[in-house]
This record gives sequence, C-alpha cells and structure tokens, in this order.
Amino acid sequence: MSALSSDNPAYSSGILSLLPLYYVGWADSILSPDEVKLIRDKVNQLDFLTITDKRQLIKWTNPSNPPSPELFRHWISVLRKQAANMPKGLKKDLITLGLEMAKTSATDQEVLKWQTQEAKEALESIEQALGIRHSQSLQTIFDEEPEQEASFEVAALKELLDDQYSKTREQMRTLLSDSAFNIETIRDKEEHRQKVLEWCRHLAQRGLGALSYPEVYGGKNSMGDYIAVFEMLGYHDSSLAIKFGVQFGLFGGSVLWLGTKKHHDKYLADIGTLKLPGCFAMTETGHGSNVRGLETTASYDPETDELIIHSPRESAGKEYIGNALHGKMASTFAQLIVKGVNHGVHAVLVPLRNEQHQVLPGIRIEDCGYKLGLNGVDNGRIWFDQVRVPRENLLNRFGNIDAEGNYSSPIENPSRRFFTMLGTLVGGRVSVPRAGLSAAKTGLTIAIKYALKRRQFAPKDGAPETLLLDYPSHQRRLMPLLAKSYALDFALTYLTERYVNRTEEDIREIETLAAGLKSYSTWFTTQTLQECREACGGKGYLTENRFADLKADTDIYTTFEGDNTVLMQLVAKGLLSDFKKSFHDEGFVAVLRLLGDRVSSTLTEYNRFFTRNTAIEHLSDEDFQLDAFKYREKKLLISVSQRMQRYLRKKIPAYEAYLRCQTHLLALAEAYIETLVLEQFIKVYKNIEDPKLKTVLKRLCDLYALSTIEKHKGWYLESEYMQAPKSKAIRRLVTKLCRVVREDASLLVEAFDIPKNCLAAPIAF
Amino acid sequence: MSALSSDNPAYSSGILSLLPLYYVGWADSILSPDEVKLIRDKVNQLDFLTITDKRQLIKWTNPSNPPSPELFRHWISVLRKQAANMPKGLKKDLITLGLEMAKTSATDQEVLKWQTQEAKEALESIEQALGIRHSQSLQTIFDEEPEQEASFEVAALKELLDDQYSKTREQMRTLLSDSAFNIETIRDKEEHRQKVLEWCRHLAQRGLGALSYPEVYGGKNSMGDYIAVFEMLGYHDSSLAIKFGVQFGLFGGSVLWLGTKKHHDKYLADIGTLKLPGCFAMTETGHGSNVRGLETTASYDPETDELIIHSPRESAGKEYIGNALHGKMASTFAQLIVKGVNHGVHAVLVPLRNEQHQVLPGIRIEDCGYKLGLNGVDNGRIWFDQVRVPRENLLNRFGNIDAEGNYSSPIENPSRRFFTMLGTLVGGRVSVPRAGLSAAKTGLTIAIKYALKRRQFAPKDGAPETLLLDYPSHQRRLMPLLAKSYALDFALTYLTERYVNRTEEDIREIETLAAGLKSYSTWFTTQTLQECREACGGKGYLTENRFADLKADTDIYTTFEGDNTVLMQLVAKGLLSDFKKSFHDEGFVAVLRLLGDRVSSTLTEYNRFFTRNTAIEHLSDEDFQLDAFKYREKKLLISVSQRMQRYLRKKIPAYEAYLRCQTHLLALAEAYIETLVLEQFIKVYKNIEDPKLKTVLKRLCDLYALSTIEKHKGWYLESEYMQAPKSKAIRRLVTKLCRVVREDASLLVEAFDIPKNCLAAPIAF
Repeated sequence: MSALSSDNPAYSSGILSLLPLYYVGWADSILSPDEVKLIRDKVNQLDFLTITDKRQLIKWTNPSNPPSPELFRHWISVLRKQAANMPKGLKKDLITLGLEMAKTSATDQEVLKWQTQEAKEALESIEQALGIRHSQSLQTIFDEEPEQEASFEVAALKELLDDQYSKTREQMRTLLSDSAFNIETIRDKEEHRQKVLEWCRHLAQRGLGALSYPEVYGGKNSMGDYIAVFEMLGYHDSSLAIKFGVQFGLFGGSVLWLGTKKHHDKYLADIGTLKLPGCFAMTETGHGSNVRGLETTASYDPETDELIIHSPRESAGKEYIGNALHGKMASTFAQLIVKGVNHGVHAVLVPLRNEQHQVLPGIRIEDCGYKLGLNGVDNGRIWFDQVRVPRENLLNRFGNIDAEGNYSSPIENPSRRFFTMLGTLVGGRVSVPRAGLSAAKTGLTIAIKYALKRRQFAPKDGAPETLLLDYPSHQRRLMPLLAKSYALDFALTYLTERYVNRTEEDIREIETLAAGLKSYSTWFTTQTLQECREACGGKGYLTENRFADLKADTDIYTTFEGDNTVLMQLVAKGLLSDFKKSFHDEGFVAVLRLLGDRVSSTLTEYNRFFTRNTAIEHLSDEDFQLDAFKYREKKLLISVSQRMQRYLRKKIPAYEAYLRCQTHLLALAEAYIETLVLEQFIKVYKNIEDPKLKTVLKRLCDLYALSTIEKHKGWYLESEYMQAPKSKAIRRLVTKLCRVVREDASLLVEAFDIPKNCLAAPIAF
Repeated sequence: MSALSSDNPAYSSGILSLLPLYYVGWADSILSPDEVKLIRDKVNQLDFLTITDKRQLIKWTNPSNPPSPELFRHWISVLRKQAANMPKGLKKDLITLGLEMAKTSATDQEVLKWQTQEAKEALESIEQALGIRHSQSLQTIFDEEPEQEASFEVAALKELLDDQYSKTREQMRTLLSDSAFNIETIRDKEEHRQKVLEWCRHLAQRGLGALSYPEVYGGKNSMGDYIAVFEMLGYHDSSLAIKFGVQFGLFGGSVLWLGTKKHHDKYLADIGTLKLPGCFAMTETGHGSNVRGLETTASYDPETDELIIHSPRESAGKEYIGNALHGKMASTFAQLIVKGVNHGVHAVLVPLRNEQHQVLPGIRIEDCGYKLGLNGVDNGRIWFDQVRVPRENLLNRFGNIDAEGNYSSPIENPSRRFFTMLGTLVGGRVSVPRAGLSAAKTGLTIAIKYALKRRQFAPKDGAPETLLLDYPSHQRRLMPLLAKSYALDFALTYLTERYVNRTEEDIREIETLAAGLKSYSTWFTTQTLQECREACGGKGYLTENRFADLKADTDIYTTFEGDNTVLMQLVAKGLLSDFKKSFHDEGFVAVLRLLGDRVSSTLTEYNRFFTRNTAIEHLSDEDFQLDAFKYREKKLLISVSQRMQRYLRKKIPAYEAYLRCQTHLLALAEAYIETLVLEQFIKVYKNIEDPKLKTVLKRLCDLYALSTIEKHKGWYLESEYMQAPKSKAIRRLVTKLCRVVREDASLLVEAFDIPKNCLAAPIAF
C-alpha cells in the first residue's frame, strides 16, 4: 500500500482515464449489483485498456472489498493535482479530467488516442452506467466555490406576479394597510361577523364590490379587477374574502348572469353598495354535489301569477348559505314547475326579511353555528313553506314564464340549460383558488422568514446553532412548495385571462380548466399550510402567528364551489369524452397520429438511453420535462379509455364502468392539470428578457417539474418511461435545486409583497 | 365473422387452452409493448401448439388491432358455457378452465397431454407474463357471487383492542358517558380552561390521576392503567387529556422519576389529588428541540444554601408551559451551576404562586393566548429573575448537592446523565400517540358512519343515489386509514408493554421505539383527520361534527413531546450507531451474514420470478410482506451507513455528513417503524383462534402491508425489488381489499366502542 501513497503511482493511462469516474462512483453512490455488472461489462469492452488495466479496474468494483481509505486518499490527491493543472476554459467534468489525466501518462503517439471522439464516448457510457455525472464530489475535486446566485430585482418579479391588475392590487395593498383593516383574533362569532360586515361595507363604499358589474350600476365591467380584489383579500381575514364573494360574486353574479335587464335595473346597484345584502341559496342538506337533484320547488300558480317556493322536507332546506343572517333576499335555486311540468333547476329571487330585518312569513332561518373556520361568515340554513313571490322574480335569462303562464327557454336541451346556468359558478371556481393561493403564500412567507432566523442545534459546543433553512430536510419541506406556489400563480393568471375573455366556443374548456385548477390549487393550499405550521413548531401553533386561521379558514376550499374529488372526475370525464369524440371521428390510428404530434412516443417504448439518461442538461431541458408530463397524461387517457371501452363491450353499464375506473380517472385529471401548469410556467419564463430573473424562474420551474416527476416516480418506473438511474438522478437534482432555491428564498417571498398587517405574525418579523 | 358466433367455433384444443387467459388479458389490462413481446415469445415456445395455432394466437396480441367486439362476445359465451359445465370442486381459475376447454376439442389420446404438469406450467408462465391471475373478470366468467364476508363478533374484537386494561377502559367509558362530561363548544379560553380544570378535578377525585404513583401516595403503581386513561381521554375534549398529562404525567412524573423520597413524601399525594397543580417547565422560547442548550440557570449559593433560578434573557423564558395559569409550582429545567461549574440540565421545584394565587416576587408569567387548538389548556410563558429556592428543591435523583455544597451524581458521564433525565419524557411519547390515535379513530368512525348513510348521484334518474362508501375512491380514501389505525393500535399496545416492563438494559431501545412510533402515529392522526374532514364535505366543517376540534387539538401532537422530524432523526441515528457497532465488532461480512438470517436477500438480486410474481397467495403471504418491509429497512440502513463512511473518509465532519444524509435518515427511520408495526400486527392475528376474527384481522393486515408497499412503490421499483407487473398487481389487490374491508367497516368502527357523547357528531348517528 505504501507505494500507492507516493506521488508517482505509475498508473497506466487507461487506468488514469477512468480514475475520476471510479473515485466519484465510490464516493457518492452505493454500487448496486446491477451497476457493478454494467460497469464490468463496459470495462471489458474498452479497446484502450490493457488486460492488466481491466483486471485492476474490475477488482476495484467489488462491493464487499471496496478500495481502502489509503487508496482513496491517494486518488483524491492525484485527481486534485491534475484538476488544478487543467487549462482554464476547459470544461470541468469527469470525462475531460479523465482524458487529461490519461495524456499525462501517455506517449506522444498515444496522446492522440485520448483526443478521439471514441475515447470520450466510451468514458461517457461508463459515466452513464454509474449515473453520477453531476456529483457533489465534483466540488471536492475541483475545489469549486458554491454556485454564485443570480440575485434578481424583487421589483421586477413583483411586477410579473401583479400582472395587468397591478393598479388594483396596489390599491388593495394601501387599503389593507389601513389600521381599520388590522386583523384581530375574535372568538365570538357575532362579534366577528359584525367586524367582517363592517369591512365589507368599507370595500363596497370604495366601489370594489361592483367592479365586475356594468358601469351604469356603479361598476367597471371588469371581472379581472374583481378577481384581483378577491385574491388580495385572501391575504387578509378569509371570512372577509368569502363574505365579499358571496355578496358580490355569487348573489350579485346570479342576478347579473341569470337575470335580465329588469333585474339588473332593480337590484344591481344596491347589491354593489351592499344596501341589498343577499344569499346564493343553492346547496341543500340532502344535495350538495348533485345540484341537479335539489328538492326545493318553485311552482307557478297561474291564478295569482306567482311562484310558490317550497321545501318539501327537512333535508330540502338550504344549507351553509352565506349571508343567511344578514341577507334581505336569496337567489334561490329550485325545480321550476309550470303547468305540472318540471323544467329543472332555475333561480328565483326570494325576499327573506323586511326593512326591520324580521324574517318574513313562511321562511325559517337557522344559524349553522360555529364552524372549523370562517366564523366571520354568517352561514345558515333556510327553509321555505309555500312562500309566494311575483313571477318577475324568476331570473329568466335561460328560462322564462310569460304572462300567459307558458314556459320557454333559449336553450331547448334541459341538460345543456342546466349546465349553462351552473356556468355562473365558474367565476367562483376561478376566484377561490386564488384566495387559497394567497393564504398559502402567507404561510410560506411566515415559515421561510422564521426558518431564516430560527436556529436549533449546533455542529459542536460553542459554535452557532444551525439555521432551520440550512437543514436539507427543511429545504425539502418548503422549497418545492415555494416553487409550486409560483407555478400555480402563473397558471391561475392564465385561467383568469381565459375566463375574462371567454366566448361561447371555449367556455366548456374553461370550465374544465377551472374545475381542475380549483381542486389542484386548494389541495395545495391545505398541504402547504399544514407543512408550514409544522415547520414552525410550537410557534406555528400560537394564533398570533396566523396558521390557526389560515388553516381553518381555507380548509373548506377543497369542498365548496364544488367538492374537489367530484370536480376532478368532471375534468376526467370531459377529457374522456373529447377523446372518444375524436376517436369516433377519425379512428384509433388517426388519434394515435394526432397524439404523436404532441407526445414524442406515446405507447411506443422509449429507448434505453432516454430512459436512463441522467445528464443534468437533459433533466433540466423543458422538452424532457414537458414530454414526461404529457406522456403521463396521454398514457392515462388512452388506458382509461381502453378500459372503459372494454367494460362497455362487456355490457357493463356506463355508470358502473365509470366507478371501476374512478381512481384511474382522478389520476388522469391530475396529470392533465399538471401539464397545463408546467406549460404556463415554461411560457412565462421564456418570455422574460432579464437574464437574472429568467434564471431564477427557470430554477423554480425545474424544481416544480422535477419534484412533480419525483412524486410520480412509481408510475414512471412502472410504465418504463424511466429506469432507476434516471429517477435517482432526478431525486439528487431536486435536492440540489432545493439548496439553490433556498439562497433566493427570502427574495422570492418578498416578491409576493404581502401587506405587513396581513402577515401579522410576530415570528415573520 | 358470422362463423365465429356459431356455437361450434371449431377452435383447436391448443387455442382453447389459452382462450381464458387471452380473454382476461384483453378485458382487464392494457397490454404494454413489453408484455406483448413476452407473450409472443412464450407462445412461440409452447410445444403443444401447431403452427396455425401460433399464427392465430400471435395475431390476437396486436394492440393496434385488438380482437373485435363480436369476437369478444363470442369468447365470453364459450368461456361461460364451459365454466358452467366444470365439475364441482374444481378450482375456479383460468388455467384449470383452459385445460378443461382444451380437452373438449381433443382426441382421447390428446386428452392425456392436457393432464400433464408441463401443460399446466406452460399456461401458468403465460398467466404470469400477463400478470392477470386474480382478475375481476374471473367473476364475469364464473358468474361468481361477491365474496361472502366473514361476519365476526364485535365484542371479541373490542376485547382484543381493550387489552389487559379493559377494566380501566370500561370505567372510563362509564365516566365519560356521564352528562357532566358532555363535550361543549366553548369559544372563550377562560371559560374553557375552567371547564377543563373542573373535569380534571373529577378525574383526580376518582384516583385516576395518581394511578402510576406508588400506593402510599394514593396510586396503584400502574403506568399501564394511567396510559389507558390517557388514551380514553383522547376520545373526549383533548384539552382535558393534555391538562391531565401535564399535571399527573409530566409534573408528577418529574417529581416521581427525578426526585427522591423527600420530594415524593412532600408532594406526590397532593399532585395526585390536584391539590398542588404544577408545571413541567422545560421548553424555552430559544430552545425547544435542543433541550441541552437551555439558558435558564440554577446557581447554587453556598452562603444561603439556596439555588438561584434565573432567565438571563427574554428568549430564555419558559414557553408553552401547560398549567402556567393554574399552577402553584414548576419543575424547572435549568443549567445547574455549582461552584462555578456547569453540571448540565437539572430540574428544580420552584414555587410560582402563594395561597391566594398571587404570582411570587421575581416571577413573571404571561398567557400564551389563543392557540390553533387545545384552548382549554392554560399554556403560558414564565421568566425567573434571581428567584431563590432551598437546596432541597433540586430534584436530586441523578445529581445532588450535599450540605457542604459539593455536587455529585450516580452517573459520571454528563451526556449519559442528560439523556437519563430526558428519559422522563418517554412516558409522554408513549401516551401522546395513543391519545392521537383515539382522535383518529373518532374521525374515522364519524366519516365511515356518514359515508354509510350519505348518498349522492344516482346511476340513472329515479334510481336511489349511491352511498358514499360504495364509491371506490371513497373506499381508497378511508379503508387503508382504517387498517392502519388497527395496525397502530397493536403497535402502541406493544410499546406500552415494553415501556411498563422496561429494564436498564432495554430502555434505550424503548426510547427509540417510542420516538419513532410517536412520530409515525401522530402524523397518521393529522393525515387521517384531514382526509375524514374532506370526506364529510360541508358537514365535516361544522363544529358540531367534531372535526374542527379533533383536527385543531391534535395538530400540535406532531410537535410536542419532541418534534417529529427531530425524533425520526434520533431513531435513525440510533439504528446507525447500533449498526456501526456490530460492523466494528464483526466486520462487514459478518454483518451481512447476520442480516442474511433476517432478510432473505439483502444486497443480492431477487430473481425474475420473485420480482414479477403477481399471485395473490404470494402477495398475501406474510413472509413476502415482511421481507419487503425488512428489505427496505436494511437496504436503507446499509446504504446510508456506506454513505456516511465515505463522507467521513473524505474528512467531512460528522455533523456535515449527517446533514447530507438527512432525508435518507428520515426514510430509514420510517422503514424501521413500519417493519415494527407490521411485525406486531402479524403477531396479533396469528395468536387469534376464532377463524372469523382471524380472517378479518388478516385482511386489515394485508391492507396495511400492501398499501404501505404501494406507497413506496417508487422505491421498490427503483431498487429492483419489484418489477412493474408486481407493483400493478399490488395496486389491484389493494383496491380489492378496500372493497372487501368496506363490507366490515361498520363493525370495525363499532369495535372501538367510543362513548357516544364523545362521538357527539350528529352525522354519526
């Protein structure tokens, strides 16, 4: 062994060429039997090695007899010496180093051999087999400084996030910074509701509630600005956001979208100023997700030209209705019965209370009581006992009763009519995930700021304790969530734009998008706030540090405006029926060809190089990332479609067949939304010109893309889209990206520019 | 095609033998290119097929030209006819069916061929390749009734869960059913704290607080009964459980375990009756996880023979201290300084308030204010400003100051002394997960009972809507959690037994067990309650349905009594140092041999048959399941150990090396705990004699084992322990087990026997 520690080991050039790979292979990774076999095979095939070389190199691959510590120390000293000698400008990688080393021990003639493409490729193939190209040990060998961070302009990133509604956002930041909007812990629901009502009046007075209404009713005809206000309220007490949304978005929205001019003229201005507080009375105790099955009836009485609103049984009562205690009127969804014919669910305006705020005859209202959160919102239950309202109170845009008592509708098909009316809910599905994302950003900001000042445990006595955010496990907890919050911001901005500019043609696609993104985002919010609370330990449990309310208030986001699991099934069914349609139109082969344009190799096997490619450039390549996302989506779509076909062929009823594919469908919906989110993220950073900002966004995008692939690695390995070395390389890269993004974490949360008195948590300052 | 729909297809016997496999292969699964290739290879190798047979069979494997619907209908009619004709007692599987079918078209001589072992094995190898042995389509072919459920005696299962402390549990059920213990929604913390204090007095009066103390102080010397009481309180308002635990477990426990007879005589009786309410003042604002770094000092003043307790700075104040508002005294953890020497952290009894409940001079106490949950517990902050107490107040079991002012300790090594004292926390780590599990069981009971009466969406108009629990996605959400709640119950019972019967020798192992199980269980509680809340939709959000408090109160369980992430690292470090020790003692080869006894093939490759074996008998075999769990644990242990060795060899400091392996260590700790949980579950059902109960428990155990393997399938595929067909088969089997366990779900939650007024949720009745 002593000879080995000399400065001149007299290694042959063949051995020297492989030394960097061997060193890193042993230093960084556990050689599995498979890898050992692969390396041995490769080594045996290398032309430029002598038999002695091969024997030595194979000996060094024995896992039960690894190179000794002395040998190791020797290797690293040889390698560092050579690395230090390498000409500037030469790429610092293990292959180049190996080739340079080989030359040092070669004759003049042999030197040429080490300059050929073949030699390079041979080494690369071993590197590939080892899956260690981008090892941490490179740093050890080349004495590299930690990567320099691209520090970017926070203002530029903030501008990007604020998008075209930056003026409204700034207005909200100023408003919410007013001491009148200071967030308080109010435990009593009556008191809390009063406070929220008061805040809501402030907003209405400033014209913020009416933003989406036509100008003649005090609005600005801008749904986009309305949504921006709602999103900003997500930073504040969420009870206010929800109260605001119920009054101006749901109640006002139902009058605006389901009513006609007579309703607009009579009510919209007063709704916008909160002079007429109202409810959106859709959900019943017995029917929440299945709105079509609502049991409340609105029967037309030709005698008096009135509609009779009635709850036929206790479980037909309206439930969870916001504004039920403060409201004067309710947009009430009921089965419309005219001349004995049920025309399906329609909305009718039903007065609830008189000027003195007394409940009107025939109406019963109950408080839902305390809830897990959102206790500043007055949710209640409402029952109707033969309550009569004039015929004009029918919101009659999509279904009218004329003076002769005849029903008519511009939409003949009852099912299409129903879904068109339900389309009024889409605004809620676009808005809610944005408020949820604001809550998640608040949680991330608090947790990251805390982790950047909280220290615990020291490397040794007397040394300063380690910052929480310097723990890799802490980075792993928070950084992927931070990246995903950016990804979702861009995706939701895209959804808003699509929604604001919607047309008859693309409304169905937008509804699918909204249903999917609402679910994907609100689940993210729940998960993020839980992780952040835990990451702040006991401090996160104190109400003063905001997680109590952030978590409790947003917990219901996964349920209301459509239960996430139900919505995701809608998304999948939409995808499936689109697919079935093109299948019928063009035949299976045509569909495959169609898919082929978008997915490089759906249903065809990926080659071994691709499935094992662990090069960092490849993994960071947006084409690879997008291909992986799309492959998953398309493969799930095709396979679930085939399963459905088979069930149907076997005469299994469609409903039963759907049930059997239910979890498969949920996976498909998720894959579809993830592809969309990644596409938008890529689009955003490609449009950035500022190179520093671009670098930061690319890293976040990589982290989102690769941590998502990592989450699904079981699926990717199962479907043989990837092999083990690749999924391991992805894990390593995600860890590395977490470390890199950590350096920018403070600036990245600053760019959210959350008003200080919304952040409010002592641990965040 | 018309010939095919005749009753006599004139298929050759070779084709008939494969028909069942082909039918199911096409009906149930998507043939991947890999699978197609495998099947074709196999078909080509089958001796008993003619060339024409082979040509036809290979044609039928073309994914882009699958068998036509007519052909399919024909196949199923042929198969069903034959299935109906099969002699009773014959095994109903695809192989037997194929062999029987082949005989119908064979000559007398040929019939013999179909009775050989070779033919059977040839078919089995194809079945293996298709990975479809236990297909749902079997049911279609054989017109099978859904599996008959083993209905079991709920009482027997309850008895098993109640274990040896059933008497105490029954006592608690009676007590908690008293109207005095009705759970109320109390929003005001003062009022809530009063109520909890009152309840706590009730318990103390009945001698339940003192259970673990010696009889002479009013106890029964039974830690096991104490823990059973605590677990039962987990069904009730958790504030009560925690208040109870602080007073009797932590404060009383510190006097019992860290004090000596003089302290016992003076205080224990009064602690047990709650006459002396007290605090366990360990955590400081600046130091929570890192207890060794506490900054409070207890300096001995020989002049007056007193200890001076002092908080040197604001962040040295004690924080989150339960009983801080009601307490008269605090076990205060501080650096003990005697004659200028710091002997490390010791506990000292410090009076906080006088008889009139006025705070004593030099002491400052603040209310922590509202928290996310547990608002019935009076958590506060305490600072000491040169507070003097007599020397006797030092809890001096492990460190004493004598009358001459000399420090001595029975444990020389300060580090060992510190960990011995911290050992008093183990009781908390044994108890907390049990109370958390009670909360999770409550949530599961509510969600499952609701899902068994709530309906939503009908297969078609007029038909009854579908029960939530009949949706496969709902089964997938709740059934694995139900199975895991049973798994954890048995594991925690085992932990309790080990703890109650602990000796000097095994205390370290028990501490590791407790740290790991506490983390694993409390994370389970958080996850389960979230899933159950969402599964109950809007109803789950109403406070009256319990999730609000169950979630909020238990959220901190992942943090207190040791942050879960920190504890899991402790577990891993313990495993690693044990491993390192045996490595040093016996050398690497010896260790491998040692492991070989327990893990069939650690570090050696599994053969192709094993890694692709999809037979239901194999997957349900406890040996396979346990091997999979142990393989993961051992492989993670060996690889992280090798990584550490390499880092150390490269002179990377141990602390830095640990950091680099941090996520790896967390995975190892999880794998270790999961193995332990499975081992205990297997042990329990193996001991059951009642065959029905045994069947039910085996199913739950299978569901726990296989859903855990499914969760880690990325890892298993990556490490090549399994191939894709096997992981897919596991997914299908988990789905099936969810369906089967769903049939017993109602009885399985009944067996928890949660007192009705603890369940309290209207939707659960």
